[in-house]
Amino acid sequence: MTGEFRYQQLEAWLLQGLREQRWRQGERLPSIRTLCREHGVSKATVQHALQRLEAQGLVEARPKAGHFVAPQPAAVAQPVARARIEAPRPVTVSDLLLDIMSRSAAFDLLPDLHTGELPPGVVALNRSIGRALRRQDGESFQYYDEPAGDRGLREQLSLHLARRGWRADPERLCVTSGCQNALFLALMACCERGDVVAVESPGFYGVMQLIQQLDLQVVEVPTSNDKGMDIDALEEVLQRWKVRACVVSPAFATPGGTLMPDSARKRLLALAEVHDLAVIEDDIYADTSLGPVPDPLKALDTDNRVILCSSFSKCLSRDLRLGWVSGARWHGRILHLKLVTQLASSRFVQQGVAEFMADGGFAAHLRRQRTELRERRDRLIALLQAWPAGVRASVPQGGLAVWVELPGAVDTLAVYPEALEQGVVITPGPLFSASGQFKNCLRISFAHPWNGARIAALDLLPQLLLQR
Amino acid sequence: MTGEFRYQQLEAWLLQGLREQRWRQGERLPSIRTLCREHGVSKATVQHALQRLEAQGLVEARPKAGHFVAPQPAAVAQPVARARIEAPRPVTVSDLLLDIMSRSAAFDLLPDLHTGELPPGVVALNRSIGRALRRQDGESFQYYDEPAGDRGLREQLSLHLARRGWRADPERLCVTSGCQNALFLALMACCERGDVVAVESPGFYGVMQLIQQLDLQVVEVPTSNDKGMDIDALEEVLQRWKVRACVVSPAFATPGGTLMPDSARKRLLALAEVHDLAVIEDDIYADTSLGPVPDPLKALDTDNRVILCSSFSKCLSRDLRLGWVSGARWHGRILHLKLVTQLASSRFVQQGVAEFMADGGFAAHLRRQRTELRERRDRLIALLQAWPAGVRASVPQGGLAVWVELPGAVDTLAVYPEALEQGVVITPGPLFSASGQFKNCLRISFAHPWNGARIAALDLLPQLLLQR
Repeated sequence: MTGEFRYQQLEAWLLQGLREQRWRQGERLPSIRTLCREHGVSKATVQHALQRLEAQGLVEARPKAGHFVAPQPAAVAQPVARARIEAPRPVTVSDLLLDIMSRSAAFDLLPDLHTGELPPGVVALNRSIGRALRRQDGESFQYYDEPAGDRGLREQLSLHLARRGWRADPERLCVTSGCQNALFLALMACCERGDVVAVESPGFYGVMQLIQQLDLQVVEVPTSNDKGMDIDALEEVLQRWKVRACVVSPAFATPGGTLMPDSARKRLLALAEVHDLAVIEDDIYADTSLGPVPDPLKALDTDNRVILCSSFSKCLSRDLRLGWVSGARWHGRILHLKLVTQLASSRFVQQGVAEFMADGGFAAHLRRQRTELRERRDRLIALLQAWPAGVRASVPQGGLAVWVELPGAVDTLAVYPEALEQGVVITPGPLFSASGQFKNCLRISFAHPWNGARIAALDLLPQLLLQR
Repeated sequence: MTGEFRYQQLEAWLLQGLREQRWRQGERLPSIRTLCREHGVSKATVQHALQRLEAQGLVEARPKAGHFVAPQPAAVAQPVARARIEAPRPVTVSDLLLDIMSRSAAFDLLPDLHTGELPPGVVALNRSIGRALRRQDGESFQYYDEPAGDRGLREQLSLHLARRGWRADPERLCVTSGCQNALFLALMACCERGDVVAVESPGFYGVMQLIQQLDLQVVEVPTSNDKGMDIDALEEVLQRWKVRACVVSPAFATPGGTLMPDSARKRLLALAEVHDLAVIEDDIYADTSLGPVPDPLKALDTDNRVILCSSFSKCLSRDLRLGWVSGARWHGRILHLKLVTQLASSRFVQQGVAEFMADGGFAAHLRRQRTELRERRDRLIALLQAWPAGVRASVPQGGLAVWVELPGAVDTLAVYPEALEQGVVITPGPLFSASGQFKNCLRISFAHPWNGARIAALDLLPQLLLQR
């Protein structure tokens, strides 16, 4: 047994049992009470250890039934494709990629909106917004909201973030039209035309598009499915070129859902200080965590250079169009850019969301969603296990997608139009690179329920991708 | 009697009577029936002539009572201050001006939000949005709206614009986060860093801020209170410097509420073709017209170079944050910039507004608002008549403000902090110039009702401004 704390000792003991298959997939683990008694530890210690195993996707909690061994994605190996380091360059996005990008923001294998049940969290949210509308009175409709956004919403966001180890000052938060808008304001505030921006590779295509539109240059930093951005590679990049900003998503990297370890976070911030980098933290997936929600990188920012960007789009509703940014030393400029590019946000929408958060509706929604997402992820990994040998897939700890690596000869970009003809939208790997890398990879989302139509779409893929 | 049409003959006869004071201020004009009989014309002809006099602010219609001679602002002379033509330059906005700008977007003499009654139009609008929220179902909250915006709203906007002589193709409309956001997308799409943009002077400060943030240069074109942008001056500017774009508000110019005559519109478009200009039409005040709503400049655009920008902020609610842009030859790039900078707009808000428009609620709201705005404008002009001699004021045909010119020695910028200390927000003239012109001018809004507090604030001004 290793580890200095009791929960770590218990975690190691449970991990060993799982490896030895003392409990098999789907079987129930000993109860919390039994573990307390047999290991002479408190209930909190047992819960902490179990929560950590949950975060690793090894164990799942079923309300009122106990903890069970989660389906193991052992038959699917981790992706290994690694980006090349290339000199900074402008971004050029082809029309085909633009088409794919506009479809892939929906994260769905199916091309059209589908009906289903509105989750209770979104129903409650909509009621809150309706109440905010009915509360509108006097001449408030004649006034723009302040550019930073509704004070009540910023206070709720501050409380929400405080649970993650960072007490955000509401004065240092600015509400935006979603996370993409926050990233836009951040890049516009801290970069000038021609500046070099380091990004994860594979990484988020929306950032690549922003770099193109703002006439910046990109340098891709290899990013792995176990540790996120490779900090050794980043260091090499920073030594070779003058880099102005680095966009990174510690929780969780697009497209593989990787959580950046603490050691990498600390090294990243140390490098940022030495090389005077703006660090833009894309935090949009944090609340999709399948385990405890990790702290933001921003919590470690003692040098006022981490710009945190996020929104409600991935964890609540993409139709709210509400995000936020905390702009560190660039915050004043970000606020001004928000004012100049759109004046303000809708007060009534913000007030509705603030009430929903204050009422506990948001926290309850996230709890329910976590269970659903874990089931959807596990189902996807189980379905991928039936794919031919040689297929590799990430096991995301958060985010909404699995990164799939196919044998080297596959060209997912070439398959895209063919798949679309058959009614399946795939998200090819090259979308996640400014230099067209990852041709043999694709992102598959588990944001939507695995109904018959989606399973049928998924089942079509091996044939389309592998038998050409 | 002149004019080729019967309504023009009748209009000329009525105008002459008004000039000769055959009917005095506040008196009732002959009834429609009497005019029909005495002039041997149809009811429609009489109504057309009366509507045109209304549009000129000479006559006012009172429901069920007839037409009355409007209060004549004869005692207040038109402003004459004229901008100088200066070489293109970058814009630099001082911190004081930023403070003023952020307050002045509220168009109020009072610094805080005030209670009052929510207009029935806004109550109906809010109900429509509430219904759209309750209609949300399935997984639609999981999908971003298309970047161009909700199809139903674009169709309603197209119908709304068609009444003004321009049948907009919904495919050529893009929904934005307000008009400022539309102007931002338009300028970003058609200009590159360093390009020169011609603007009205005095003109809208929001455009000046955009020019600064996008690293463009500005050239100010003198703009008068009777004809809007001086097209002779524009021609001189175009001959002297290479200008990329021209931002103009034909209906109605900020800050004086001037309607650009047809002859000027045609010359402007001819010049735009010769000098290959992008013409950005700021149409935000069109629906605040006190008479018939004028056609947009865009209706005359045969060369696909007029970018129309507008929003609901001045005529319905500033809290909707919904605007639109039709981008002419730059439309594809504008759509892409919308996608990259904010992905999409809120579908439920757009659907609510579309239903409100389809139900006729918007048209009814505009009718009611027109009566209110006319009363508020007339009241303001009457109040200004009590100011000392030498004060000049525009008589706006639309828009929400009067442009006031004081004797040359007055410095409204210097008065600003003093007025603020006394609880009055003034909007100094230099705000409407990139080169600090119009020191002796200020904008006074009539967007809000003239209650006791606002009249008291207005009454403080002559003393603050003139007795220093």
